[in-house]
Amino acid sequence: MMKKIAVLTSGGDAPAMNAAIRAITLSCNYHQLQCVGFYHGYNGLIDDQYVEMEHFDVNPTLQQGGTILKSARCQAMLTSEGVIQACNTLRKHEIDALIVIGGDGSLRGLQAIKQHWEKQVIGLPGTIDNDLSGTDCTIGFATAVTTATHAIDKIRDTANAFERIFIVEVMGRHSGHIAFNVGIATGAEAIISFENFSADRALQKVTELLKAIDKQQHTHGSFLIVLAENLWPGGAQALKESLTEQGKVDSAICILGHIQRGGSPVPEDRNLGTELGLAAVDAIITGQDNVMIGREAGKVIATPLEQVINTAKPVSAHWVNAHQQQLTHYLK
Amino acid sequence: MMKKIAVLTSGGDAPAMNAAIRAITLSCNYHQLQCVGFYHGYNGLIDDQYVEMEHFDVNPTLQQGGTILKSARCQAMLTSEGVIQACNTLRKHEIDALIVIGGDGSLRGLQAIKQHWEKQVIGLPGTIDNDLSGTDCTIGFATAVTTATHAIDKIRDTANAFERIFIVEVMGRHSGHIAFNVGIATGAEAIISFENFSADRALQKVTELLKAIDKQQHTHGSFLIVLAENLWPGGAQALKESLTEQGKVDSAICILGHIQRGGSPVPEDRNLGTELGLAAVDAIITGQDNVMIGREAGKVIATPLEQVINTAKPVSAHWVNAHQQQLTHYLK
Amino acid sequence: MMKKIAVLTSGGDAPAMNAAIRAITLSCNYHQLQCVGFYHGYNGLIDDQYVEMEHFDVNPTLQQGGTILKSARCQAMLTSEGVIQACNTLRKHEIDALIVIGGDGSLRGLQAIKQHWEKQVIGLPGTIDNDLSGTDCTIGFATAVTTATHAIDKIRDTANAFERIFIVEVMGRHSGHIAFNVGIATGAEAIISFENFSADRALQKVTELLKAIDKQQHTHGSFLIVLAENLWPGGAQALKESLTEQGKVDSAICILGHIQRGGSPVPEDRNLGTELGLAAVDAIITGQDNVMIGREAGKVIATPLEQVINTAKPVSAHWVNAHQQQLTHYLK
Amino acid sequence: MMKKIAVLTSGGDAPAMNAAIRAITLSCNYHQLQCVGFYHGYNGLIDDQYVEMEHFDVNPTLQQGGTILKSARCQAMLTSEGVIQACNTLRKHEIDALIVIGGDGSLRGLQAIKQHWEKQVIGLPGTIDNDLSGTDCTIGFATAVTTATHAIDKIRDTANAFERIFIVEVMGRHSGHIAFNVGIATGAEAIISFENFSADRALQKVTELLKAIDKQQHTHGSFLIVLAENLWPGGAQALKESLTEQGKVDSAICILGHIQRGGSPVPEDRNLGTELGLAAVDAIITGQDNVMIGREAGKVIATPLEQVINTAKPVSAHWVNAHQQQLTHYLK
Repeated sequence: MMKKIAVLTSGGDAPAMNAAIRAITLSCNYHQLQCVGFYHGYNGLIDDQYVEMEHFDVNPTLQQGGTILKSARCQAMLTSEGVIQACNTLRKHEIDALIVIGGDGSLRGLQAIKQHWEKQVIGLPGTIDNDLSGTDCTIGFATAVTTATHAIDKIRDTANAFERIFIVEVMGRHSGHIAFNVGIATGAEAIISFENFSADRALQKVTELLKAIDKQQHTHGSFLIVLAENLWPGGAQALKESLTEQGKVDSAICILGHIQRGGSPVPEDRNLGTELGLAAVDAIITGQDNVMIGREAGKVIATPLEQVINTAKPVSAHWVNAHQQQLTHYLK
Repeated sequence: MMKKIAVLTSGGDAPAMNAAIRAITLSCNYHQLQCVGFYHGYNGLIDDQYVEMEHFDVNPTLQQGGTILKSARCQAMLTSEGVIQACNTLRKHEIDALIVIGGDGSLRGLQAIKQHWEKQVIGLPGTIDNDLSGTDCTIGFATAVTTATHAIDKIRDTANAFERIFIVEVMGRHSGHIAFNVGIATGAEAIISFENFSADRALQKVTELLKAIDKQQHTHGSFLIVLAENLWPGGAQALKESLTEQGKVDSAICILGHIQRGGSPVPEDRNLGTELGLAAVDAIITGQDNVMIGREAGKVIATPLEQVINTAKPVSAHWVNAHQQQLTHYLK
Repeated sequence: MMKKIAVLTSGGDAPAMNAAIRAITLSCNYHQLQCVGFYHGYNGLIDDQYVEMEHFDVNPTLQQGGTILKSARCQAMLTSEGVIQACNTLRKHEIDALIVIGGDGSLRGLQAIKQHWEKQVIGLPGTIDNDLSGTDCTIGFATAVTTATHAIDKIRDTANAFERIFIVEVMGRHSGHIAFNVGIATGAEAIISFENFSADRALQKVTELLKAIDKQQHTHGSFLIVLAENLWPGGAQALKESLTEQGKVDSAICILGHIQRGGSPVPEDRNLGTELGLAAVDAIITGQDNVMIGREAGKVIATPLEQVINTAKPVSAHWVNAHQQQLTHYLK
Repeated sequence: MMKKIAVLTSGGDAPAMNAAIRAITLSCNYHQLQCVGFYHGYNGLIDDQYVEMEHFDVNPTLQQGGTILKSARCQAMLTSEGVIQACNTLRKHEIDALIVIGGDGSLRGLQAIKQHWEKQVIGLPGTIDNDLSGTDCTIGFATAVTTATHAIDKIRDTANAFERIFIVEVMGRHSGHIAFNVGIATGAEAIISFENFSADRALQKVTELLKAIDKQQHTHGSFLIVLAENLWPGGAQALKESLTEQGKVDSAICILGHIQRGGSPVPEDRNLGTELGLAAVDAIITGQDNVMIGREAGKVIATPLEQVINTAKPVSAHWVNAHQQQLTHYLK
């Protein structure tokens, strides 16, 4: 009998989740497997929102942001009742393997399912935050960096025209992958992120910044601070107030927010989503289980879910230092 | 002796201010007039920040956002001492005509100068807000609408994926030109702006919205509310809280902010800036004075500054109604 | 009984045709009229390819290029058999009014139908070429200008890096609306189009160009020639060869081609498509017939099809001259 | 005495060459080295076109396409007189190390210099074609792929509207890196490139294509063929004619051309250019010589120029197969 593979997207949506769904569907078609989807993340498993997927459904979605299977966060999956209910739906539809595309929390959900379900589970890294080990880049990260970079390019124009300080808050959950890649790509004068920030040096950091700013007033024009979300107590607004109070300098804030999640994926993400989608089906065929499929150093690899979930992937110290080197003209 | 024309940009910067500066410089070149600039808006007049402008300075700026002459708001121009000082600088450099590119406040400054200076003054409408009469569109408006539209297109992807309500705040100072043009271009389910909002109906408005939202939950996916800045007491955050408290619905907010001011101008703005820049020099040659040059119905026109400043340009009722017509499926 | 309105798109597709289709559908919904579509232009009428349209079909298409009703050129409509067959289909489905979105040829087809069909016919101007009278801009024109402008911005980078001459051919059928708007928006050093070119001056034009180029070699960097399609005998390649043979200068050519037809429409086009789509339904309700709905000077107007088809809309001499003024630095 | 480092860009320009120049300049500043540039590739060495570089020159160039040092191909470097003249200029200015950013030919030029000059030479991979070993990606490749992808996305709209076959020719010199990355990212139905094409199977290939096309006419809509430049004898036009003659199918062609070289670099390229620029200066400080600096598997590596020049970097067979897998629905 034809094997039946289910796919769902879970947690914060990320550009090129659709590319992965499409590749899974087309590859199932190629390998003569049946492909089905569940809507709204794990909620679709719990509530049995089921759909059969064909190539003409997924083909036009390669360039679309969001996810045609919808996504959601799912509280019920934190309870064993929820997990068991999800597994019952999988059994009801006689699913042979489940592929979940999502971030850290989504992969934990998949682990939970594995404990109550005997079939294969495969994770794919789908999150703009790039905070998953087992892959160099997550699906959606490159698009988020591109969107934030273009947005900050625009802000730079106004910052230059007014010779003004801007604080721009970018996403990233609890890591600085977006902050550092966007900050370096936009030539930000400062990046304040988890990797180069400690609470007890916060005040000192502000003071250094202010000195640097004072220096540049006479040379450059604008001064851009890229701030990682969830970092500064009180957020961008609080940082702005500190700059005003302690440094007597005025600044403007801009919180990029949800524009970083959507949009037509950049080709890098479409191709990563496609490659990992194809590889997920290959992994099922070759009997892999309880792993996340990622790409490191250009090669597709499988990493146990356990390990992915318990290993951090920090921004490399090399890259953090790269930013410092470029700013010496402020410090002389 | 060769006539000497000065130009400055003032107030909030707008994309294609550079196109206007470039056209003025090239046209002066063509007509064998001397062209000079002052930096940082009226501050450059008060502090004598003077620069001579040649075609090779301005030629590459056609596609650049911001303004190469920098901009600023200038408190000193609200005092007669400031105005007199500005006029003294104009006399010192033997300027024959002054062109100011900016919004409402900038044109008021130009009027003030006219009262203490005998030479020609010409205004050009440069603001993303499009809130100036005497022209169908202001320089920068089309780019701001484009940037906000593309940003909301991205937000729509996430809103669809999560079937969620988003409140997106757009710029516009005290008018809804951006809100309505962006709201209709993105198919926003609601536009809350000055033109269709009254304080005493605020609560009712929220209630209607909530009903509409409830209806669409079962048909569509997402629900986008475009909110004009400076309108809702407490802003997007307060609206979100009202929706939560009174309607028991969760929503996400996104304040687009300064990305709307910058960026490479769209061709429509480059061409408007070019056309009005050329026309400003023509106006000087033909002896016009104390007017703003704009474009209405495809024709360049000159409107007395007095009239521009004292006449509002509302969003047409026709356009406000256009949005309503498209939403009937929510109201049935 | 509920009135039944049909819509089709014909001829070269143009961005925001979907916006017009969507507005027509939503407005029919609002006015409680039935809305249907025919696929593949007039072929859909001849072959009876019929579809009923609802708001959930059209709502997500506002930001999509192309046309969900497909388009085609239709030879059969040049024969009376074809026209009669098309009218029979309209009668079979008891259509009360037909809206056709397209260019010059498509409107001629609509006139032909009018001669054999007693109900209302309404045209909407949908073509990237902007070569229709009765409207300031056609649906799709602004997007084509934007796409071509961004493409040439990129070419400018390489042209500058190599200090090289580029000939870029843009679309426009037999008019220079795209050529002049794109040429001015990109600061092209030369625009060769129908409006400023005569066959017997072709050689002289090349010679002048070459002199100008020679001059700029010592000042600027690159030299961009925007060439209207269907103008130079032999096209861009022939012009390149003339420049090589007669002027001993090397140049590169780039034919932008079909990228100018597609892509997500800019907000200006989405809003024009929406406005005219709503107005088309209004026109049907108020009993108008045999007219094209356009927008001039910000107002929706109706022009008899006869007049639209027989009246040219040239690029304004004012705009042609505007380009000349900016180039004086080459001619001194 | 302060060490003096020279940089030049050579061969076809590539987006983010400026990012590399900027990083080199800022890093020299950081390490207290002097940084100078030569204009117009190796021509600037032969003709002594010399410029001193400071951080305020390079800082705003991070987001600009092209190269501020200009580029050129240089015939004189193929003669020993030319090479010796170039070395004399390096001696005259007492250069201690030379960094050349370019492709295959540019690195050969650098090798030639090394044979007549005793100081350090470092290559950086700057070409959109990605056809250099010693690095996973060349500087500019990601931007070219992005530009071509967005262009083809637009063409897809028209292809869908007309249900038509399009042949789109992309750059790549003699390799299919662009063709495969763009083809997969756009969901192209066929990719014709060096990796999957043999001259004696050309005719068969066309026949297979035609069958596939025939099949899809009844299912899908459009059919996109991505063709690598320099491959099909006679180019896209000849392929179109073969399709017409042998298969009786009509197709449209689009040669993307130079738009693929320019434009503001995507963040991936800005960051690669920055990383490799910083690493090039580090390499000089640590005494490396006669190597190209690249990035493989996320790590900066140095590869002897000799090896880079004599080793091909093919598109991986894995990636070529990935494309095949997605097309099964045509072949059933």
